[in-house]
Amino acid sequence: MKYRIFLMGLVMLLCTTGTLFADELSDAVALHQESLDMIWLLVAAALVFFMQAGFAMVEIGLTRAKNAGNIIMKNLMDFCAGSLVFWAIGWALMYGTSVKGMFGSSQFFILGADSTMFRDWMFQVVFAATAATIVSGAMAERTKFTAYLIYSVIISGLIYPISGHWIWGGGWLSTLGFHDFAGSTVVHSVGGWAALMGTLALGPRIGKYVSNGKKVASKAILGHNLPLASLGVFILWFGWYGFNAGSTLSGTDLTMANVAVTTTLGASAGAIAAMVISWIKFGKPDVSMSLNGALAGLVGITAPTAVVTPTGAIIIGLVAGLLVVFSVEFLDKTLHIDDPVGAISVHGVCGVWGTLAVGLFGATDSVRGLFYGGGIQQLSIQALGALAVCAWVVVTTGVLFFIIKKTTGLRVSAHEEMTGLDLSEHSAESYSGFQIFTNM
Amino acid sequence: MKYRIFLMGLVMLLCTTGTLFADELSDAVALHQESLDMIWLLVAAALVFFMQAGFAMVEIGLTRAKNAGNIIMKNLMDFCAGSLVFWAIGWALMYGTSVKGMFGSSQFFILGADSTMFRDWMFQVVFAATAATIVSGAMAERTKFTAYLIYSVIISGLIYPISGHWIWGGGWLSTLGFHDFAGSTVVHSVGGWAALMGTLALGPRIGKYVSNGKKVASKAILGHNLPLASLGVFILWFGWYGFNAGSTLSGTDLTMANVAVTTTLGASAGAIAAMVISWIKFGKPDVSMSLNGALAGLVGITAPTAVVTPTGAIIIGLVAGLLVVFSVEFLDKTLHIDDPVGAISVHGVCGVWGTLAVGLFGATDSVRGLFYGGGIQQLSIQALGALAVCAWVVVTTGVLFFIIKKTTGLRVSAHEEMTGLDLSEHSAESYSGFQIFTNM
Amino acid sequence: MKYRIFLMGLVMLLCTTGTLFADELSDAVALHQESLDMIWLLVAAALVFFMQAGFAMVEIGLTRAKNAGNIIMKNLMDFCAGSLVFWAIGWALMYGTSVKGMFGSSQFFILGADSTMFRDWMFQVVFAATAATIVSGAMAERTKFTAYLIYSVIISGLIYPISGHWIWGGGWLSTLGFHDFAGSTVVHSVGGWAALMGTLALGPRIGKYVSNGKKVASKAILGHNLPLASLGVFILWFGWYGFNAGSTLSGTDLTMANVAVTTTLGASAGAIAAMVISWIKFGKPDVSMSLNGALAGLVGITAPTAVVTPTGAIIIGLVAGLLVVFSVEFLDKTLHIDDPVGAISVHGVCGVWGTLAVGLFGATDSVRGLFYGGGIQQLSIQALGALAVCAWVVVTTGVLFFIIKKTTGLRVSAHEEMTGLDLSEHSAESYSGFQIFTNM
Repeated sequence: MKYRIFLMGLVMLLCTTGTLFADELSDAVALHQESLDMIWLLVAAALVFFMQAGFAMVEIGLTRAKNAGNIIMKNLMDFCAGSLVFWAIGWALMYGTSVKGMFGSSQFFILGADSTMFRDWMFQVVFAATAATIVSGAMAERTKFTAYLIYSVIISGLIYPISGHWIWGGGWLSTLGFHDFAGSTVVHSVGGWAALMGTLALGPRIGKYVSNGKKVASKAILGHNLPLASLGVFILWFGWYGFNAGSTLSGTDLTMANVAVTTTLGASAGAIAAMVISWIKFGKPDVSMSLNGALAGLVGITAPTAVVTPTGAIIIGLVAGLLVVFSVEFLDKTLHIDDPVGAISVHGVCGVWGTLAVGLFGATDSVRGLFYGGGIQQLSIQALGALAVCAWVVVTTGVLFFIIKKTTGLRVSAHEEMTGLDLSEHSAESYSGFQIFTNM
Repeated sequence: MKYRIFLMGLVMLLCTTGTLFADELSDAVALHQESLDMIWLLVAAALVFFMQAGFAMVEIGLTRAKNAGNIIMKNLMDFCAGSLVFWAIGWALMYGTSVKGMFGSSQFFILGADSTMFRDWMFQVVFAATAATIVSGAMAERTKFTAYLIYSVIISGLIYPISGHWIWGGGWLSTLGFHDFAGSTVVHSVGGWAALMGTLALGPRIGKYVSNGKKVASKAILGHNLPLASLGVFILWFGWYGFNAGSTLSGTDLTMANVAVTTTLGASAGAIAAMVISWIKFGKPDVSMSLNGALAGLVGITAPTAVVTPTGAIIIGLVAGLLVVFSVEFLDKTLHIDDPVGAISVHGVCGVWGTLAVGLFGATDSVRGLFYGGGIQQLSIQALGALAVCAWVVVTTGVLFFIIKKTTGLRVSAHEEMTGLDLSEHSAESYSGFQIFTNM
Repeated sequence: MKYRIFLMGLVMLLCTTGTLFADELSDAVALHQESLDMIWLLVAAALVFFMQAGFAMVEIGLTRAKNAGNIIMKNLMDFCAGSLVFWAIGWALMYGTSVKGMFGSSQFFILGADSTMFRDWMFQVVFAATAATIVSGAMAERTKFTAYLIYSVIISGLIYPISGHWIWGGGWLSTLGFHDFAGSTVVHSVGGWAALMGTLALGPRIGKYVSNGKKVASKAILGHNLPLASLGVFILWFGWYGFNAGSTLSGTDLTMANVAVTTTLGASAGAIAAMVISWIKFGKPDVSMSLNGALAGLVGITAPTAVVTPTGAIIIGLVAGLLVVFSVEFLDKTLHIDDPVGAISVHGVCGVWGTLAVGLFGATDSVRGLFYGGGIQQLSIQALGALAVCAWVVVTTGVLFFIIKKTTGLRVSAHEEMTGLDLSEHSAESYSGFQIFTNM
């Protein structure tokens, strides 16, 4: 009998300490899971934040010295105003409780947020700011600063979050199975189509297609600082590892490695394709085309990055690099749309390409594209999504730019434009002491 | 009977394998905890290191082309000399065994360090180097390079570590409950007050307040490269995610997300406030003021970042952005203190503001400020700490600069200053081949 | 009897649930291990990728404005072409199944890769691209772009992976106990020796040692943008934390902290030594020498970083800083080898120094150097490895450059060189609008 009691006591003891011990261990393991997600997303968010510097340097480098200070202000305020408005309403519209799959409707001012929601907001705000920044480049060298502030706030606070809700916030497109891993459509094509509308609303820079009152073939208005532009591209590429690989949204989703690899190969292929095409077309390997080719590859691989093979990524990148050269040429030479940095082509055209590429090269069980035995179903959904977002952005930014034009005005005066926006809009000189020719 | 034996054997076996298994698991979990802390702090340290590039670019951009090479040397040597001296004595004075809460007294040359101490040293050395770098900007364009090296070493090795010990090393201010999460006082105001004393000891640049022998109103001496200055600000902001969020000092302290969010909002609000105020005051949104506004917001949010709400962060940032504009103007126009980059205002004034803001906006159980029902207790302690550190730095750097002035000399000759420090101090030319006007 | 049954049931239950629970926990812990490795290596890889921007900025800054665009193209294509070729064959030659310890022979196109292999490829591709980039600086301002593309691809795809296999891929040198933690030999000296052969094959830039048909003492051809060069050095140093600390290859190897510390101290000591020596030799503390000193320290500490003490690291850095000054002078003034950025001295000479330093300052049980009681065994093996890799690279790149010279040609025409490679090779202008004197 006493054996039994001893035995039972032993079992009970074992049971209790074991459970206690296991509880403690299990709490630690759960905390580590949260910590891995946290560290991964915060590091990725910091990298994506740094892309703001990349966008600024690319835009500064590819435009004229007399507007560099204005570009700094636009890029800085994109993020600053954008983050406040995304705090107040953007997050709520994108990730709040869905109203019929169309927009979110809760968590304004991220009230009541815990660390997890803070983390998610942090990762999302840096994406929101990107969409606005893309537009900046296309509208460079002639846009009123006040007008810029207005549209920047509206895009970050309203336009981007609502279409974002459709895809990443549990809205109608996500329900249909639309796949945009890191934002070829959500971020880049939104920026690209807004850039298109902005450029159309503004018209070309003085001297671009008209000289001495006569129509001329497109005049190349050279950027003033290719080293800064290249630095910008390297910064963007660097930040893109946060942009794409961070979009696993989990620190223990090991496909982050696949993402890093396809991102690398896509970007490389894009740069090479653009270089080769420019070499063939113009006789020389073009510097800014090659730089834009890398960005085109990055934009293209952004949607499909997690679901394609390395070979798929390379093909996607090659096509993006090819597309960007032809698109830049077509917009400029044929349509006479003046996009100083090629933002429409890089982010709009290649954003759509990347979105469709999911439906062509998807190679996973859940996302299978046409070339990998998946039929045209995924491709159709991708096309629908790209189209829907395009329509949404074209209409809303069309209205927006129309209203701005009729109220505050969208464009500086011809004299201000010729003087340069640094002096006219900010009383600034970006390169004091340097001999610069601004009448170009 | 044999049942009992069988049963007991089973229990014993279970007990043994279970324990063994649990031990192994528990070792792995403990290692993961160390690894999370390690990865988090090393990544954060790398980001903070990169801030050195940010400081260099800001200072280069906001000063004249003829001194750019000298600024590179100062910023490079700040870190290089600073890290050696912080290895030899700085760490020991800051984190060694406390002597009456005044300074540390062990672990010189971090002898006997294990990986954990190496990790902590790595995270701290990048902070130490920041304080010295802040001073560099205020004393730009006229300081002797040898003099600079001397004070840089003294600040990193003696002045910074001792007041740092009071707050982060277990010293008397920490005992009182002074809260400075990531260093508004420990790092920034130390740099700011040293900058003030250095600027006073040096006097203004030639031509700043005197022209042709006559006193003139403050002449704006324009920076030569706003794009680099803006890049510097973006780099600093990027690095600040390491600076602030890394200051959890633990990879599993999930408040790192709160820190990232309040840091973002504080910086954004600072830039916006400075832009708006400059717009109102000068008629145009000022580029360098807006950039400094972002930095002001970052400095201001650095102390309270972990204990305030998003709303609190925004108010703190707005006030910092406002303060920096008025402070820069007041120092320049009224006091005729010539601080080329605004370091005193950004790091000194906003450092104090951030420190006090803890006592106003603190919203956690342990740190509760006046506006959140905490009375004036925390505020008083914060004021005391800010004052004590100010006194410490003003006195020690005052003595230091006095001695330097009387021995090696602090300032280059008028001829060297006019020629530019690149040529006179380093036989260098920063922009060879460019047409530059240096007689400005 | 029923007690026994009850008891046995209890034990069985405990056993089952305990095991189930432990299984789940143990799966989570195993996933966390993979996740820690993954996050650590991907973050490190991103940092190393960013070093490409650093190399580009250093090379741009230290050469003339008329070749900046060409340097951008070289650095961009280094990585883009390099990553594709490293995907196709480089990885396989380096890490595939070893053929007698000489080269790898499987995993071409990383076919069948899982996330772990993708992760490892990602971390390795950024190292491969570095070797090619190093060469770029030494051959700047006079190399044909097509020739550059060819050798860049061959180095990344064949030369680097094969000697890399000897050391990191399980080849013959690793079997002998050769220790190169992060690549002083594997990466830097490979780049350095290739740079030497390239420079010899090219000959010096026009006007460097001959003026008006007469031999002259070495003419300093000044770089056009020291701020960019310094930014490049800061970026490289920043990225080096990924390069060295990431080379633990494991997120839970806590020696990563030791690595970060010795890397910091080695770089700092290198910069200080180079500054002091240049001060003594030339009378002024030289800017570009000091910058190169930091890089020399980094290259030197790369091999021994994990096995030396802080004191060892400082001595290694000091020697590297000293070596780089004398080597640059010797190559230029005595041997008349024209290396515009000092790549041979920084990466070749200091790469060998760092490799030997393992055999001198190694202070761990497994790697013990001469000065730490280990005799000359490790030193001998290090010397053998350095020599073998030097021979391999000198022979292969010698043949390569010879073939290129005889086929496509290696060097642009004198007219193209004087015009600048931006215009002649890319029809580009890097600083449009600025007054620049290119006939220097």
